Amino acid sequence: MEKHHVARIKCSDRKGLIAAIAAVLYRHDLNIVAMKEFVDISSETFFTRLEFAGTMNPEQLTEDLASVLPGDAVVNIIPRRKKKIVIMVTKEYHCLGDLLVRHYFGELHAEILAVIGNHPILEAFTHTFRIPFHHVSHEGRSQGQFEAAMLTILDSYSPDFIILAKFMRILSPSFVSRYPERIINIHHSFLPAFVGASPYKQAFERGVKLIGATAHVVNNDLDEGPIITQKIIPVQHDDDLRDMVEAGHEIEKSVLADALKMILEDRVFVSGNKTIIFS
Amino acid sequence: MEKHHVARIKCSDRKGLIAAIAAVLYRHDLNIVAMKEFVDISSETFFTRLEFAGTMNPEQLTEDLASVLPGDAVVNIIPRRKKKIVIMVTKEYHCLGDLLVRHYFGELHAEILAVIGNHPILEAFTHTFRIPFHHVSHEGRSQGQFEAAMLTILDSYSPDFIILAKFMRILSPSFVSRYPERIINIHHSFLPAFVGASPYKQAFERGVKLIGATAHVVNNDLDEGPIITQKIIPVQHDDDLRDMVEAGHEIEKSVLADALKMILEDRVFVSGNKTIIFS
Amino acid sequence: MEKHHVARIKCSDRKGLIAAIAAVLYRHDLNIVAMKEFVDISSETFFTRLEFAGTMNPEQLTEDLASVLPGDAVVNIIPRRKKKIVIMVTKEYHCLGDLLVRHYFGELHAEILAVIGNHPILEAFTHTFRIPFHHVSHEGRSQGQFEAAMLTILDSYSPDFIILAKFMRILSPSFVSRYPERIINIHHSFLPAFVGASPYKQAFERGVKLIGATAHVVNNDLDEGPIITQKIIPVQHDDDLRDMVEAGHEIEKSVLADALKMILEDRVFVSGNKTIIFS
Amino acid sequence: MEKHHVARIKCSDRKGLIAAIAAVLYRHDLNIVAMKEFVDISSETFFTRLEFAGTMNPEQLTEDLASVLPGDAVVNIIPRRKKKIVIMVTKEYHCLGDLLVRHYFGELHAEILAVIGNHPILEAFTHTFRIPFHHVSHEGRSQGQFEAAMLTILDSYSPDFIILAKFMRILSPSFVSRYPERIINIHHSFLPAFVGASPYKQAFERGVKLIGATAHVVNNDLDEGPIITQKIIPVQHDDDLRDMVEAGHEIEKSVLADALKMILEDRVFVSGNKTIIFS
Repeated sequence: MEKHHVARIKCSDRKGLIAAIAAVLYRHDLNIVAMKEFVDISSETFFTRLEFAGTMNPEQLTEDLASVLPGDAVVNIIPRRKKKIVIMVTKEYHCLGDLLVRHYFGELHAEILAVIGNHPILEAFTHTFRIPFHHVSHEGRSQGQFEAAMLTILDSYSPDFIILAKFMRILSPSFVSRYPERIINIHHSFLPAFVGASPYKQAFERGVKLIGATAHVVNNDLDEGPIITQKIIPVQHDDDLRDMVEAGHEIEKSVLADALKMILEDRVFVSGNKTIIFS
Repeated sequence: MEKHHVARIKCSDRKGLIAAIAAVLYRHDLNIVAMKEFVDISSETFFTRLEFAGTMNPEQLTEDLASVLPGDAVVNIIPRRKKKIVIMVTKEYHCLGDLLVRHYFGELHAEILAVIGNHPILEAFTHTFRIPFHHVSHEGRSQGQFEAAMLTILDSYSPDFIILAKFMRILSPSFVSRYPERIINIHHSFLPAFVGASPYKQAFERGVKLIGATAHVVNNDLDEGPIITQKIIPVQHDDDLRDMVEAGHEIEKSVLADALKMILEDRVFVSGNKTIIFS
Repeated sequence: MEKHHVARIKCSDRKGLIAAIAAVLYRHDLNIVAMKEFVDISSETFFTRLEFAGTMNPEQLTEDLASVLPGDAVVNIIPRRKKKIVIMVTKEYHCLGDLLVRHYFGELHAEILAVIGNHPILEAFTHTFRIPFHHVSHEGRSQGQFEAAMLTILDSYSPDFIILAKFMRILSPSFVSRYPERIINIHHSFLPAFVGASPYKQAFERGVKLIGATAHVVNNDLDEGPIITQKIIPVQHDDDLRDMVEAGHEIEKSVLADALKMILEDRVFVSGNKTIIFS
Repeated sequence: MEKHHVARIKCSDRKGLIAAIAAVLYRHDLNIVAMKEFVDISSETFFTRLEFAGTMNPEQLTEDLASVLPGDAVVNIIPRRKKKIVIMVTKEYHCLGDLLVRHYFGELHAEILAVIGNHPILEAFTHTFRIPFHHVSHEGRSQGQFEAAMLTILDSYSPDFIILAKFMRILSPSFVSRYPERIINIHHSFLPAFVGASPYKQAFERGVKLIGATAHVVNNDLDEGPIITQKIIPVQHDDDLRDMVEAGHEIEKSVLADALKMILEDRVFVSGNKTIIFS
């Protein structure tokens, strides 16, 4: 599905990094098809993402790249293949539906291994697409028990990414730390406006003229993770709360789709509480 | 400049209001060219704005309309004429420049009577367009003295509206109460995100992917007034703070221009902390 | 689903129309909840759409309204109920999928009676949602035979609207005249740019920086019908044709969803080759 | 004003180009701050733009880069300095006003050397900003005489770029060939829709729901040059032609400003009838 292999490198900045990296790929007889880099001046950190074509030995390439880079370099060589994801939901169908339909027609650029819901309401719909659905209720369980039950299922699938497609429960730091930078959430507001519960209600009451949605990498602080994509849609004085929720669903789907595309193509780096996106 | 007379009516809602209002205009031999209305369900309040053509007697029309409406009705008959405005600035030129250039070519749909600045930096530029500039420094004055000095100048011009085109001082409730719902401000963020000082710096540090600007009616709470228009513009990880400020200037101009158009055409009603805009 | 009854009126313009219409509704003890009107100056035609609440007698109301309006008045009283639609498709799934998923969860604001495809490829997918699918091939049939076969099926469902959700065959004037102003098409370009076949290929070759989609009412001229909604999405030099098609699918879905909302809520008037949309 | 030196390279594609280029900069002790490249697959052409810091010898650097690149390589080393531009206008003020105001406050990132108008109407306004204005009328002159008169003035300024800020006369191929890829035009439609005269009138009559503007590099075919930037703005059925023109002015200014930023920072490559923009 992905057209080329990808190399991702993060290290402290110094002169000559591009020359060194490009020379290694040239020696491996690999053709650089696209290369983007960024230096975060505040932290003096260098980030690059390369797409390249050719027959490669990932271990040797990683080793040869590391040998010409600063000692703190993190090198990831990612052969082209479809990513594996698990989707987590509560009750709302719109983001899940969008992902399942694309997947059904082979255009998601990912393999959906399973859906986990803390409510059973989306089970029949998920089964329609012949995807396993696991109902893990949070009721009658402690947060620890609830998360342990979900992690048992998640771990059994070894997903590359976990997509919170309107999963409306807060996850603990210990849960998040099991899949660092690999859990993606959609929040139904233009962060940092309207964090927390009922953002459309907050937006309606404030009388804003635009509402938004934000896809972000999940970290330990609620709605504070590094932002991947944001979109907005205009609203008017005669849009009531129901109208806003309906309009918001459209951009939630759209924002999640855009963020997933970036994530699945290995274009997103996390740097502190920000993202670098080589789109 | 404006094509028609405007009537604005606000009153408690009841059946038959439109019929009653339209019948009065028909009896006055006035032709309704456009009519928009809205009922705020939560407060059971009816708002309407009509554009109409014909020769009118404003006092008689107001009286006749009031006689068929609930006792709490506020009726405004606004003959077509250019509005008069005073602009208040601090140091930034971009919003002021946009307004002065339009005004110079007769396309602002308002008459700029004067510019008041708490810094002298924009004086020469304003004079270039043959508009009076009043420098009223806040330095060495109490807030009360500062505002009194500005009000003396403002009152002498009897403006319809006061435009804060990047005026960077907070105004007191007593100042605002002299021009209720007639002071328009541009805030350089997507409210309610990033209230207060240095919103672009806040946005840069948070790592948002969109930045915004908001034009609002000024009330007694900083950056909390009823919102008129909002716009956003995408930013990326390689936009530094200076890039964000520059990009933001474009939407600040654009948001202020859009809000002014609505205000100058009498399209904006304030209802609590929201606006109703008959665009 | 729809909150109120709707009245739609089109007639030649004259003074006092709003007063006359509103008076009739008042006499019927009906409360006007929203009213929008527009006068097309070039044709001196008056259009209005009212939402109203109360118990009504549609025939009497129509008659009473007609009696106070010009002789050419067209009055439509539309009781609140879900509209019935039939969807026509060829091979592409994205618009159909979006509609079927919303319908499954009861949020389409319409009842999908059936799907007709000139290819069988979307049959299994449609059946998944328990909606009838009719395969009517154009192969081995004349255009007349092909359309007759489709009309037999369509007529049996008596749909309010026919949605061409990426139906890639041209329909003849005689077909269109059976459902005047009731067939909605999505064209995958920003009309009038790139009419006809392969608009994304045309856009790619021209090197545009935005691509678009257009929903329009179908009339007798290919891609020339009155436009309902249009949206665009930015593209860049490194987007190849496949990227453009993928990005385009997103706005096609979005444009069709927006247009359908306007159509299903009776907000769209056709006036010559334009639309008037009381949104 | 520009932060770094820029290198632009265009050549036929082959393996190892990035490595070769980066190695040359490393040997010159120059630090690559940003690097973007693109391979046009259809023509097998490689494009790159590098920003770099350090003390450089432009001639030696050009020579050393050329020595490691294919024989068809075009290498441009551009030291950081403000570009020089001449603006050409007819009667409309909005784009010119925007550029003059930015220039006045030192934020245009270019030096405006002069304004040439084929009408005298903007002369006083231009002089207000202490910029020379040359009136070159097309009346009573052949196209050849008209262009010769303008070229005499243009050549005397040796501008880097010529900006057609609503210059409403067609330029001949021989004029354009004197400043190849250095003349930038703003067209007041979303190209390729509505080429030629009166695009807003065409848009109004077609009943589109979005209007647009396009900045492009001028070549020999009217409105057919490589597109740099495009923007759109929504319009509604009650926007008459004057409203559309006014709304359009806003995006014309905005599109031209965005295009100029890309041009002045040397981010635009022309490739056939397309642009590659390293934004």
